[in-house]
Amino acid sequence: MVGGGQLSRMTHQAAIALGQSLRVLATDPAESAALVAGDVRLGVHTDLDDLRAFAEGATVVTFDHEHVPTDHLHALVAAGHRVAPGPDALVHAQDKLVLRRALAVAGEPQPAWAEVESAAAVEAFATEHGWPVVLKTPRGGYDGRGVFVVPDATAAAELLARHGTLLAEERVPMVRELAAQVARSPFGQVAVYPVVETVQRDGVCNEALVPAPDLPDDLATAAQEMAVRIADRLGVVGMLAVELFQTADGILVNELAMRPHNSGHWSIEGAVTSQFEQHLRAVLDYPLGSTAMRAPVVVMANVLGGDAAADDWAGPSLDERIHHFMAHWPDVKLHWYGKGQRRGRKLGHVTALGEDLDDVRARAVAAARYLADGVVDPAFVFEEEH
Amino acid sequence: MVGGGQLSRMTHQAAIALGQSLRVLATDPAESAALVAGDVRLGVHTDLDDLRAFAEGATVVTFDHEHVPTDHLHALVAAGHRVAPGPDALVHAQDKLVLRRALAVAGEPQPAWAEVESAAAVEAFATEHGWPVVLKTPRGGYDGRGVFVVPDATAAAELLARHGTLLAEERVPMVRELAAQVARSPFGQVAVYPVVETVQRDGVCNEALVPAPDLPDDLATAAQEMAVRIADRLGVVGMLAVELFQTADGILVNELAMRPHNSGHWSIEGAVTSQFEQHLRAVLDYPLGSTAMRAPVVVMANVLGGDAAADDWAGPSLDERIHHFMAHWPDVKLHWYGKGQRRGRKLGHVTALGEDLDDVRARAVAAARYLADGVVDPAFVFEEEH
Repeated sequence: MVGGGQLSRMTHQAAIALGQSLRVLATDPAESAALVAGDVRLGVHTDLDDLRAFAEGATVVTFDHEHVPTDHLHALVAAGHRVAPGPDALVHAQDKLVLRRALAVAGEPQPAWAEVESAAAVEAFATEHGWPVVLKTPRGGYDGRGVFVVPDATAAAELLARHGTLLAEERVPMVRELAAQVARSPFGQVAVYPVVETVQRDGVCNEALVPAPDLPDDLATAAQEMAVRIADRLGVVGMLAVELFQTADGILVNELAMRPHNSGHWSIEGAVTSQFEQHLRAVLDYPLGSTAMRAPVVVMANVLGGDAAADDWAGPSLDERIHHFMAHWPDVKLHWYGKGQRRGRKLGHVTALGEDLDDVRARAVAAARYLADGVVDPAFVFEEEH
Repeated sequence: MVGGGQLSRMTHQAAIALGQSLRVLATDPAESAALVAGDVRLGVHTDLDDLRAFAEGATVVTFDHEHVPTDHLHALVAAGHRVAPGPDALVHAQDKLVLRRALAVAGEPQPAWAEVESAAAVEAFATEHGWPVVLKTPRGGYDGRGVFVVPDATAAAELLARHGTLLAEERVPMVRELAAQVARSPFGQVAVYPVVETVQRDGVCNEALVPAPDLPDDLATAAQEMAVRIADRLGVVGMLAVELFQTADGILVNELAMRPHNSGHWSIEGAVTSQFEQHLRAVLDYPLGSTAMRAPVVVMANVLGGDAAADDWAGPSLDERIHHFMAHWPDVKLHWYGKGQRRGRKLGHVTALGEDLDDVRARAVAAARYLADGVVDPAFVFEEEH
């Protein structure tokens, strides 16, 4: 697996159960997966020589991020390596313009969009769809980076000068964000997970509520069927997450990820087959596992670096916070990524299972908040309600 | 963790979630845990220098087996290392005579026993308790090794000549075997798991049925309370498995393990906190996790090397068997240990969850049998019934 982040780290856990030993390409021995994997190679994922050396002898090469240049992926395939997902699929998760074009051809619902190279083009787009306009760098963005909400042509001109060609999108009047995850094997077998509500904060996923509360069955099915169609049409091998905007009228595709995804971390405890095991089954061409839920309601909450990440933090240490977390919430599951603390950074996540959404969510969110900040703030539980 | 077997391997998976990186002392890089851990030291667990080098810088030293000489453990403690469980506790899992003496003082129920150094002593014991007599080597036995059912004084004399002092036990007219697992932290917090029925085959654990079917509540509670008393009295830190014989009259202690134990593998998927995570929480002095079950019935079945381990095996390869297993049983969870195949060797285990014991057991056992032997034998499911 190219990339040494927490997705690799959790994939390594799943690989162990399957009798596999995951080889990880990390840029630094202190990366999350590099701290725990048995076969860590240091190298740079934008360096073809490093990628070639890494791929040598591996059954299949897969990814914990989208940042390997598409040309390099083609070069690996040309050299006889199995790459999953393949470059022709993965490019749709790497390049937002490529995705928009493909979805347009496929007739899948998405926000109004245009490829823009000038302020005049943005202005023309805004005339039809209104200001503000959302401008996105086609490549390289994640967790809200590379996404700009632009109020006028002057701001658009500045961004175009800095980034070149951009993707313009209407600002969708969304109700909330959803994610539909499926796995697809080379053989074409597909496994579908329940549709999830992802609660965002400053562009970063903060919570996943499973199944998406109060989502009408027909909309859930439509989202799942669309994810299957997209996986099939693009020839995805591995996990696919389709990030969706829910609007008053239905659902629109935001973007794709072709790997285990933050919206699927709940599945480690919450589903019979976790997204990490499922990704491995798919890329190794094993039959896929059951996606049945282990409980009626599952909530995952990210632990994002907070006040406690500051240098002058005088509250409880991380080790003390983990002690108190374990004492307070003996049934909430911890996943700590082993990374250094930094404000806004994804340091870990917690998962709670149960019957009642309000109760399960309150436990997960309070626990995550305590781990991050060392403070118990009962009000926080309701802060993100919509 | 001293020892590179499957217990270390699965403990490593649990450690990753807690933000820890398990250091493993393995004797061979091909050992189960050595294949997947990030910090593997090669060395011999009976060599004090190797142990000292291994313990250097570790937060705490713990074990996946009982084979470290007690004197070496005392030496590590004397050198300032934290060792959990400590040598004064662990000796009761290492030496069956020490255990028998301690249980006698504590007044806990156990088979009639005697320390024997001569055939005459065995004969005297048999006069009171009948032939055959069970003779056990006090140290070094596991999975049925070091246990001998002896029909007469001649056979006893031969064993004594070979092994020196032995433990003689009455052959208990047992109904079945049970296991009661608890975890205990240095602080004295205790967490109790449901009592399990362990189905043995040739002295090796083959299945764990959870909770033990048709076990009266008062007997289950008595077994759990006894496990807590023993953990407390011996000062156990970490997981303790009390292996029990159930007889027509109640329960008797067979032996102890002070580590994650085969009878607790079900807890990975079947309990909120797995025995591996719980062992880490205990030895690291974190608060213990919930032991609640995730489903009404859980069955774990070991995959023991079978016909397919033979050199001249012409049936489906291991990889084919794993494919078919996954296709047939998409909801049965696989744990493969990565070891070479050998007849009778524990190669992995599978776990099934559900509502109905017969159904869950049939799935787990058939899946394990298929993985081991590559044959589907519906009759097998009923072979072990009692």
